[in-house]
This record gives sequence, C-alpha cells and structure tokens, in this order.
Amino acid sequence: MKILRFKKDERINYGIYENGILKEIKGDLFKEFKISNNTFNLDDVEILSPVEPPNIIAIGLNYQNHATETGHEFPERPVIFLKATTSITGPGSNIIIPAQAPDYVDYEAELAVIIGKKAKNIEAAEVDDYILGYTCANDISARDCQLEIDQQWARGKSFDTFCPIGPWIETELEPDNLRIASILNGEIMQESNTADMIFDIRAIVSYCSKNMTLLPGTVILSGTPEGVGMAREPEVYLKPGDRIEVEIEGIGRLSNDIVAE
Amino acid sequence: MKILRFKKDERINYGIYENGILKEIKGDLFKEFKISNNTFNLDDVEILSPVEPPNIIAIGLNYQNHATETGHEFPERPVIFLKATTSITGPGSNIIIPAQAPDYVDYEAELAVIIGKKAKNIEAAEVDDYILGYTCANDISARDCQLEIDQQWARGKSFDTFCPIGPWIETELEPDNLRIASILNGEIMQESNTADMIFDIRAIVSYCSKNMTLLPGTVILSGTPEGVGMAREPEVYLKPGDRIEVEIEGIGRLSNDIVAE
Repeated sequence: MKILRFKKDERINYGIYENGILKEIKGDLFKEFKISNNTFNLDDVEILSPVEPPNIIAIGLNYQNHATETGHEFPERPVIFLKATTSITGPGSNIIIPAQAPDYVDYEAELAVIIGKKAKNIEAAEVDDYILGYTCANDISARDCQLEIDQQWARGKSFDTFCPIGPWIETELEPDNLRIASILNGEIMQESNTADMIFDIRAIVSYCSKNMTLLPGTVILSGTPEGVGMAREPEVYLKPGDRIEVEIEGIGRLSNDIVAE
Repeated sequence: MKILRFKKDERINYGIYENGILKEIKGDLFKEFKISNNTFNLDDVEILSPVEPPNIIAIGLNYQNHATETGHEFPERPVIFLKATTSITGPGSNIIIPAQAPDYVDYEAELAVIIGKKAKNIEAAEVDDYILGYTCANDISARDCQLEIDQQWARGKSFDTFCPIGPWIETELEPDNLRIASILNGEIMQESNTADMIFDIRAIVSYCSKNMTLLPGTVILSGTPEGVGMAREPEVYLKPGDRIEVEIEGIGRLSNDIVAE
C-alpha cells in the first residue's frame, strides 16, 4: 500500500494511492483510519513529505563501500546522528542551497524507515510490528560545515530543505535486498543495494529504540551507499539548476530541484 | 512574567504564575491569549516542561572556563549539536539512568532560550523580538557514548529524560549577567555567570537562525560553565538516589531526581 500526504485547496490529508487513483483517508494514520470515497487525481494535488517527524535519526557510514570510500573502518555499532526536524521537505519541492554554506552541498540516497507506533527497547525480531513503511530520502549535507568547519555533523545536515523524503510510504516492502540509486541531472551517481548495509534495518531500529523512544512518525535514515559527490574524482556538488533524484526498488523515485537561497 | 505549563485532572494548559497564584490562560501561548479567572495553587498541579519543542538545539563549549577545563580552544563559531526532542522532561520529574549507558551520566547547567515566533536569518539586534523567555535546563550527557564510543554527541545527549527544563519561562530577563549553578545533593558543583559565555545569547540565536528556521517553542541550550562531573577530580557521575538542581538568577531552580531504568 502506498500512503501519501497531500494538500488540496489548502487542506492537508493522507491518502492511499492505488491503480492511479488517490483515495483520501479519514481518521488518524497512526491509530485508526478508513479509506473514504473522496478520490483525487495525483496531478491535481500537491504531494507533501509523508510525515512531519518528531525526530529525524540518521545512521552514518552504514554501507560497506561508502565507509571504504570515505576512508573509515566499519563501525562497531550504528553511528547515530540527528537532523533538525525543520530540514524536512517533500517530493518535487526545491532544495535550497544555503547562503551560509553554498559550495559543498552533497546528496546521499537513503532508504528511510517511518515508525508507525511508539517503540522503546524492542528487539530486532519485533521491529516489523513498529514500522509503518518505507520511503526514499536524500540526506543532503553541506560537507564544509559537516567535516571541516564544525566539530559535529548536526549543522551541516540540518539546513532547511536538507531532508527531502517521499514520494509516499510503501507499507509492503522487504527492506534488505533493494536496488538504491541517486541520479543527478539524469546521470546515475550512486547505485547499490540495501544488502550492502553493515547494520540492516531491523538491527538499526532495534538499536535506536534502546537509546531513545521512537514516536509514531519518526524518520530513520539508514545510511547511504558509495558514490557521494565528495568522494568522486573530480568532486561533484549540487548547484542551482540541478535535479537530484533518489530511486529505490519497490518504492519509486524522489525528485528535487536545486535552487539558490 | 512566569509562564508555566501544567497538568490538572488530565488537562494540560499554560498559566501565569504571579504572587503565589497560578492563573490559567486561554488561547495560544505563541499567538494570542488572555489570562482567565481560573486559578490554581501551585501545589495542586503537576508542572510540566514549559514546551514540547520541535527541535532542541544546543551549543557546546560556550563558557570560557568550561572550554578550558575540557582541554578545548575557544571555538571560532558556536558549536551546534542537537538533542532528540524525546529527551525533554519537566521539573520535578525523574532523570532515568539508561541501561545502555549507566556509568558516566553527567550534568550540565544551562540557560535555555525559548523561541516565541518563527525566526529565520535574523540579526543579533533583532533577536529579542523572537524570544519568548528563558528557563533553566540540564543538558544530561552519557559521557562514554558522547566522547568515547560514538563519533557524534547525539546519542549520548538524547536518551529519554536527558533534557529537563523548567520550572517556568521567565519573560522579563536580561540574559548576559546571571549567576548560574548546579547543585548535586545540596552541594554546589558548578557556579559561574552567563557573562563567561564565549558567544552571548543574541549572537547564538542569530547564528542558529541563519542555519535553520527556528519555530515557536524551539529550545536553545546556551552551553554550560565549568565544574561538570567528568572534569572534576575525582570524577563525579549521577547515580540513582541523587538529586540534581540547576539554579539561574532571575528564573529559579529546576530540580530532578535520578532513578535507574
């Protein structure tokens, strides 16, 4: 099932997208809801980020080949960092190059987990019960702030629009063997498989839940594969006019255009 | 004016505390509200964290003597990191020592800014217009996660209950020359003045607003003075049964008890 959040005539709602038709739901996505008879054409609505998360938790260095390309050993446990919740944006929206750090803005294709119900101290075997579904994410990063200027990654990862997610939440997905790619202006930049993850989705969610409560709507970004802009020769950074896309097998494609602040 | 959030008979509301009386407000604290005739005794209500923030932004190494005690040079710009929003807790509540990291849990007394209206790219001279007020905060930190096990501070700073704030928001306060202290089981552990900050409150808020949008209710922790547990000889860490308090001139005292998970 594909769940998407959308805006139509200033009203924001969730819907189920099936067979080319968007059906509005009534009720609370995270509690109880019904599919209504209100239907829309996808072209007639504005698709929003699937959630407005209470926290965005991200996992660094979680693909074997990406850890290698950035000169890191494989971490012994998931490397947790946070992105500001204000960095969230939706599919089709613009990623804004910040005036504070315009020159080293990079992409990172990531499989994002959307938590469906409150999770604390859960084991890997229980994780599926707490996941609502999956979506595509782009963990946009100002590399100068992240790696050179600052002592922490938070600022370089938290500029407004630095966390596009979407286009929808896919609820029926087996996450451990999916093609994942990023495409810059039509050219494939990253192409890998979630099987290359060092810690798989269930290990990550269980670990996070042992370190903090995961509320419904929490977004967990599960790391990015090799091929990021800073590790290429020559280096590649996003600039106004670019289109960056993240494509994940079984979900779809998240597309965003780059603009100046 | 002292604004506090409280629970009474399962109902949560804001109130103004004045002359020993708590008067409930009607309306939206961040938009428009009126003081009602509903009054309460402070002893008859449960005081909650003054806000449920959309983001908790924190500034590291921002007091001269604390930067020195931890062996750091003074940073050239504010050191931003994030705490998970789920770490927030209120005055009088318990701080829970996490099972994942029980042995090196430290306190950090901090002056917290509560943002009153949406702020983006504001200058230091404009900051006062965007601040609702100030409260006491304790930036609880599992030092082993923060500094030894992890590559990022986020996890060690984000366990549930690791961000007590309160007891209320003081709206009339000049922030740059205030005594700030932490008290462990009645003994003063930190005692300094906000005048020792490397970047003052207005510089911090302006800087944050240039790096991300500050939504109403955002909490900004402005750093801690010298005297933290890990820098003492012998080192001091929080353990079940302890009471840790943060006291800031012109605001009041935030008190929390330590319990095991």
